[in-house]
Amino acid sequence: MGNEPTTTTVNGTTQPAATDLESGGVSVIVERWKKEDLLEKCSLGSRVFAFFFSFLTLLIMATNIHGDWRDFYHYEEYRYVLVVAILSTSYACLQSWRQIHKLGTNKDLFSWPNSEAVDYGGDQIAAYLLLSAASAAIPLTNRMRQGSDNVFTDASAAAISMAFFAFLCFSISSLISGYRLCNQSYI
Amino acid sequence: MGNEPTTTTVNGTTQPAATDLESGGVSVIVERWKKEDLLEKCSLGSRVFAFFFSFLTLLIMATNIHGDWRDFYHYEEYRYVLVVAILSTSYACLQSWRQIHKLGTNKDLFSWPNSEAVDYGGDQIAAYLLLSAASAAIPLTNRMRQGSDNVFTDASAAAISMAFFAFLCFSISSLISGYRLCNQSYI
Repeated sequence: MGNEPTTTTVNGTTQPAATDLESGGVSVIVERWKKEDLLEKCSLGSRVFAFFFSFLTLLIMATNIHGDWRDFYHYEEYRYVLVVAILSTSYACLQSWRQIHKLGTNKDLFSWPNSEAVDYGGDQIAAYLLLSAASAAIPLTNRMRQGSDNVFTDASAAAISMAFFAFLCFSISSLISGYRLCNQSYI
Repeated sequence: MGNEPTTTTVNGTTQPAATDLESGGVSVIVERWKKEDLLEKCSLGSRVFAFFFSFLTLLIMATNIHGDWRDFYHYEEYRYVLVVAILSTSYACLQSWRQIHKLGTNKDLFSWPNSEAVDYGGDQIAAYLLLSAASAAIPLTNRMRQGSDNVFTDASAAAISMAFFAFLCFSISSLISGYRLCNQSYI
């Protein structure tokens, strides 16, 4: 009985028995859930890191005031970095909070239609903005450091590096949300 | 005979006949081919436009030599724009040529493994580089135009605009190749 083949013959062709099909279907769904769970955790991780680096950018740039010409608000590049850091920190904070809430209660805080597309667009735009801000601020900082190397230029360089790390985190996050957008389940 | 139900009864459950399943399968495959064909054309279009704008950036920046301080090679930001324009022009030219060849002969010129992933990565990196170059060159050009507005600053602004348009084309192309990476067929 143990070695009985679990197949049925339909219209002359051999097909697997219904129980086999069912267990196969269940294992596929369980595997999919496991994969989605892993992606959710990776996505949350990259967004938490993105929040951390964006917040550091914001903090370092906002406190980069040392009197005279060494105030960040005299330079449009640094003001741009600050604005982008505020935007990306808010976005990363909102998304992380939403994902942590979802992990805990299994309920989505904001159930807008096509939320995967919104996630992907948001991550991609945040990545583009951070890269743009970092790229804009690098030449000015380089030129200043050629003249004199002080606490103001060091803090600017640190803020730019943090913005670049935040960009990397957002680009990883956009990869994951792009993958989830393509493979969203309608179960 | 015409209204005969095209179903068979297997293990007590009613299932569609084999001919129905086959025609359904064929129509799904034909629909998929049509969709892939449309995506191929959109991807080619965006890459041809990306090539056009990248080449314009390269041309305008490389000929931006008007003597004295009005030579592009005195400024690292403009040199960066030129290098990125060379890279993105070469990449867009290669990809467009490959796609046109594929449309004509139905054969891929370079059949590396996981070519969809390489396409997506290439498009994304080209988009990031162009945005970075445009962002780096904007503050310098802005500052120059506040002092004096001449043919050198005008040409720089034009090159930056073209680089931005090329970035937009590459970002659209990366969206398409990202979609194709997720939905690649193994037929």
